[in-house]
Amino acid sequence: MFSIIMCGGSGTRFWPVSRRSKPKQFIDITGNGPMVLETCNRLSPVAGDEEIILLLGRQHLSEARDIFKGRKVHMLAEPVGRNTAACMGLGVIYAQYLGCKEAVAFLPADHFIGDPHSFLDALRAAGKLANSGGIVTLGIMPNRPETGYGYIRRDQEHTDLGKLTAYRVSEFVEKPDIKKALQYLASGEYYWNGGIFVATPETILKEIKEQLPDLYRGLKRLTKTFGKEQFEAELRDVYDGLADVSFDYGIMENTSEKVYVLPCECGWSDVGSWASLYELRSEGHDEDQNLADGDTLLIDCESSFISGRGGRLIACLGLKNCLVVDTPEALLVADLNRSQDVRKIVKELKKTEKENLL
Amino acid sequence: MFSIIMCGGSGTRFWPVSRRSKPKQFIDITGNGPMVLETCNRLSPVAGDEEIILLLGRQHLSEARDIFKGRKVHMLAEPVGRNTAACMGLGVIYAQYLGCKEAVAFLPADHFIGDPHSFLDALRAAGKLANSGGIVTLGIMPNRPETGYGYIRRDQEHTDLGKLTAYRVSEFVEKPDIKKALQYLASGEYYWNGGIFVATPETILKEIKEQLPDLYRGLKRLTKTFGKEQFEAELRDVYDGLADVSFDYGIMENTSEKVYVLPCECGWSDVGSWASLYELRSEGHDEDQNLADGDTLLIDCESSFISGRGGRLIACLGLKNCLVVDTPEALLVADLNRSQDVRKIVKELKKTEKENLL
Repeated sequence: MFSIIMCGGSGTRFWPVSRRSKPKQFIDITGNGPMVLETCNRLSPVAGDEEIILLLGRQHLSEARDIFKGRKVHMLAEPVGRNTAACMGLGVIYAQYLGCKEAVAFLPADHFIGDPHSFLDALRAAGKLANSGGIVTLGIMPNRPETGYGYIRRDQEHTDLGKLTAYRVSEFVEKPDIKKALQYLASGEYYWNGGIFVATPETILKEIKEQLPDLYRGLKRLTKTFGKEQFEAELRDVYDGLADVSFDYGIMENTSEKVYVLPCECGWSDVGSWASLYELRSEGHDEDQNLADGDTLLIDCESSFISGRGGRLIACLGLKNCLVVDTPEALLVADLNRSQDVRKIVKELKKTEKENLL
Repeated sequence: MFSIIMCGGSGTRFWPVSRRSKPKQFIDITGNGPMVLETCNRLSPVAGDEEIILLLGRQHLSEARDIFKGRKVHMLAEPVGRNTAACMGLGVIYAQYLGCKEAVAFLPADHFIGDPHSFLDALRAAGKLANSGGIVTLGIMPNRPETGYGYIRRDQEHTDLGKLTAYRVSEFVEKPDIKKALQYLASGEYYWNGGIFVATPETILKEIKEQLPDLYRGLKRLTKTFGKEQFEAELRDVYDGLADVSFDYGIMENTSEKVYVLPCECGWSDVGSWASLYELRSEGHDEDQNLADGDTLLIDCESSFISGRGGRLIACLGLKNCLVVDTPEALLVADLNRSQDVRKIVKELKKTEKENLL
């Protein structure tokens, strides 16, 4: 099963570990290696390296080459970011060029999956369904009234797929307020949208042709140049002329295809903040609910997350709900409950002359 | 006025900036340069460099030479620490060797004086009084019921010294509990013992002869060797045989001399912790009561003390009463109200193999 791994995203919420030159997907956030590597390794039972296509920014190509040294995953570098519709379109025509005719999985590079077995079962079932047409999304079972994610509402109509069931999608809804999120959770009809899609190249290209004809023309031009010298120049030229459109808005909102949601309980997390990482790694907590990586000495601390990546001793005394992230160039000390606001620091740094720390 | 500056003390409470190899008196804690340098510079209206004698540990000699490069202060390195009685005795005979006949001031190297003018006035008055006999201590006016200091109780009998008044000492009392400290503060008869004494060499040596005859004999031996080749060896030999006795217990408790306390309001602080330094430097606080040194970025922080000495950016988010001290080798993050317990960290480090961080 071909898999297209989308490695965009700046991951400013993991500053100072994530940087513009090395965003979240390229760093070891969870302790299991760089997230993009973990994402690919997780797929190995369904997709060999030669069926994996990484879509990434040109500036991250050497980083990715380092990470996948000696491995045969494919890499396509976009000259500029043009959002997910272009990214997925490019991935799809490249998969076709490599001989792919069946359903392809589209996956973000930087998500965590606690139960890879269930995840792969869902992916296989989605592939099977998509091979007979339509677009399948994985629906993440919500376990809290999260307001930070988009939701997918299911319809009554469903298809049995062995142990799993796919539903027709009733609607995609944007990030709700807490009141709506509570309703969604209670209804049992809503799933989190994890941005994971499965469809055949044929289906995707038919949709792009109908709904984003400019993108379609660009992709047609590129198809002829794969493996040829002029590919790079042609890619730059095509991308220069493309609009910035997401797959969700550009394709999914008005698709005439059948759209399915396949509910999936796989311990998914988008690992959106230091606090969510702290919760995700609960197995690593000590008896006072501290999570400490690196060379640390904790006295009378509780519920704190110490990430020592600077190679130095970090001594902590009397901390509670505190986040400490130490790197060689910059140090972050924050209220762990405020970790969503780490973005504010990056925003402030952009205003100053500290470009090198972004 | 000869001044003997006592540079002992390990200053573990300022870890990680203070280390065994560079204790508090040799580092820039207040922002005005190394404390021992500040202590000497403060004395310049009453004591020229050639009248200043630094008593220090052998292991700190090169540090002190760096700090006082090109200056003519005298330095005497004790081969081992033998507490204040030996230290003051050695200082006194060296002052005599240098020609001193009048009152000498004995001062700790690592105290802060907010009002040097008043301090020097008190020192001059104390010198005048001591020249006619007796031992004069400066009594620091208490402004809070501090339980961390010893106190001096004054008697009724007093001597006018121009604008200042010296009292006979009724008793020296050890660190009180909070109940007693409140009584002391309310009575108006008690002062903090800042460890600052003034007396003539003659008086000090007479007391040592009477109360610590072993020390006296040792000092007599040393007197003959100043400036000679055998001094170092003789000093080591004498010190090896000395008992560890403080001036307060060894001399002051049973002295037959007149003992005076000269009350002094000079903004004194022993700068005993990061928290006391934070309070001392209130002029540097921002509108949210944060004190930040170095390259820092603070968002929604209050009453926090950030000391950046590691040359890196420190970004802080949502902190309250937090202490962050960054150095190249180690980082401290603590509840600012727990800064007295920084000693616990040093104690823990001693147990581990992190000797290099002590």
